Amino acid sequence: MIENLAIVGATGAVGQEACKILAQRGLEFGRLKLLASRRSAGKRISVRGRDIAVEVLSEASFDGVDYAIFSAGGGQSRKFAPVAVEAGCVVIDNSSTFRMDAEVPLVVPEINPGDLKTHRGIIANPNCSTIVMNVAVWPLHQINPVRRIVVSTYQAASGAGAVAMEELRSQTADYLAGREIKPEVFPHPIAFNLFSHNTPIDEGGYNTEERKMIDETRKIFHEPDMAITATCIRVPVLRAHSESVNLTFERPMTPDVVRKILTGAPGIEVVDDVAANRFPMPIDASGRDEVLVGRIRQDASQPDGRGIELFLSGDQLRKGAALNAIQILERLTS
Amino acid sequence: MIENLAIVGATGAVGQEACKILAQRGLEFGRLKLLASRRSAGKRISVRGRDIAVEVLSEASFDGVDYAIFSAGGGQSRKFAPVAVEAGCVVIDNSSTFRMDAEVPLVVPEINPGDLKTHRGIIANPNCSTIVMNVAVWPLHQINPVRRIVVSTYQAASGAGAVAMEELRSQTADYLAGREIKPEVFPHPIAFNLFSHNTPIDEGGYNTEERKMIDETRKIFHEPDMAITATCIRVPVLRAHSESVNLTFERPMTPDVVRKILTGAPGIEVVDDVAANRFPMPIDASGRDEVLVGRIRQDASQPDGRGIELFLSGDQLRKGAALNAIQILERLTS
Repeated sequence: MIENLAIVGATGAVGQEACKILAQRGLEFGRLKLLASRRSAGKRISVRGRDIAVEVLSEASFDGVDYAIFSAGGGQSRKFAPVAVEAGCVVIDNSSTFRMDAEVPLVVPEINPGDLKTHRGIIANPNCSTIVMNVAVWPLHQINPVRRIVVSTYQAASGAGAVAMEELRSQTADYLAGREIKPEVFPHPIAFNLFSHNTPIDEGGYNTEERKMIDETRKIFHEPDMAITATCIRVPVLRAHSESVNLTFERPMTPDVVRKILTGAPGIEVVDDVAANRFPMPIDASGRDEVLVGRIRQDASQPDGRGIELFLSGDQLRKGAALNAIQILERLTS
Repeated sequence: MIENLAIVGATGAVGQEACKILAQRGLEFGRLKLLASRRSAGKRISVRGRDIAVEVLSEASFDGVDYAIFSAGGGQSRKFAPVAVEAGCVVIDNSSTFRMDAEVPLVVPEINPGDLKTHRGIIANPNCSTIVMNVAVWPLHQINPVRRIVVSTYQAASGAGAVAMEELRSQTADYLAGREIKPEVFPHPIAFNLFSHNTPIDEGGYNTEERKMIDETRKIFHEPDMAITATCIRVPVLRAHSESVNLTFERPMTPDVVRKILTGAPGIEVVDDVAANRFPMPIDASGRDEVLVGRIRQDASQPDGRGIELFLSGDQLRKGAALNAIQILERLTS
């Protein structure tokens, strides 16, 4: 049984998903505190049959709380995670704030659960695009080391929160009705459009999302020099991220071996039905715990047989965020 | 002045775009025959102020016709292109039927206009995804040979025709209204979803669209062994294709050199505004003749400096189909 638990950002897309997953997985816990900004205070949310009032996040929120899942943005994490740790609470933080901190473990439970042991109060939950790619690549990397990854993403609106999902819906309705489009959450129209992930671009030319995929994968895999390049694109999909992944292995690799390794690998479902032309799709991945992997094929551009292509879809809100955080919680308390 | 011209498949998405482009480019021509199936016969279309009745495509359609742009699907091309050639007509065929035929030139006018000289009555217009990638890669390849291409596409509904664009619109409206989704044109839901291009998959694991990008690029570039791998994905966008392109050059290459080469290259507009986070987007490429290219950056996964990443968007109906065909027509008649 988990002791007293808090969810910070309980009314957001990830916080709401975390409440659902707590119920679905039948986790036992003592008190559950739902914390959010003043705007959401007083709102009532039902979790496992308990009707809980949302409280305003404050410095006093963490007294007597054993574990807290933070999902209220980097600013709140920076401000309140140290306060929570000071109060004796273990923080699982969904923001990027502490991820690259050498003293903070960055964990995907299927990959590096051992890193949890080194925590000093804060454990970072990786970026969503990183997690869904990593659960698919890691089992292969164990058998035949991956020497290079070239990934292009197809990222859902949910990665920018519930307001972004609502913008996709309402803006699309406006477009279809011939009404004027007014982007508010995203800087560009998202209805029937796509665009480069709207995070700042560093001097190397990569945006922050791409840099996360590179740096976080290296940290999670304990491969500080792994060759990775990423192109992150936002697409008009509601809640699952898809990724086209090109891999170069140390030794020759075949699609059959890849299929065999991934079939039954933790957190993976192989969806690779050539006859029916059925492969991973975001609508199938949405609401699912598993990352769907398919289009497994030899990369014809690497004649030495070391290249494999994959296409995958994973629920950004579940394995990409809330589920991974709760799996970390389960590991910590089991 | 172009002599008598026919457009086969005049009521389809590409045929309609061809009619528009004829007017926009101010092309002079003698008689214009608009040909389509029996279903569309009698429909009237205005081209450059002339009101033209659509005629039923038949074996007699090409008497006295000098040039015909075919865009009515592979079956009609296979059946009627030889008939047209027999009648003395030069065919520019938008289907894949003759593209890999050794006796049929496959032409992107910015790249291999010289190949037009070898035609024996049929000239093939390349696949849309291939064209938009090739106009961006070719100018670079001239300066520093491209040794490997890894491309992932974000393909619009228009590639499957006007009915597919309508399905995207109506299905999205159904979804938003909570009505049941009934895919008809595409095998999977397209509203707020994406999926692997629904063409047959060969024994190498590539689908037909991907194989076209590989084989056609090699033919157009006269590089029969170029290393290319492609992942083709359909996304809920109306009419411009986007592509994430990872390149390996023979020698080290820098983003500055790439930007310099592409700025002013024929058929290209560089859209690479890091400060404003503005890069190629399908809504900006739609209706445009130029392929928009941006996110030009060094590929950090190739430490020898030979890697470059690009992201591009090009109008599938224009440069990807009708415009390229009309540019071929212009070259043939100039």
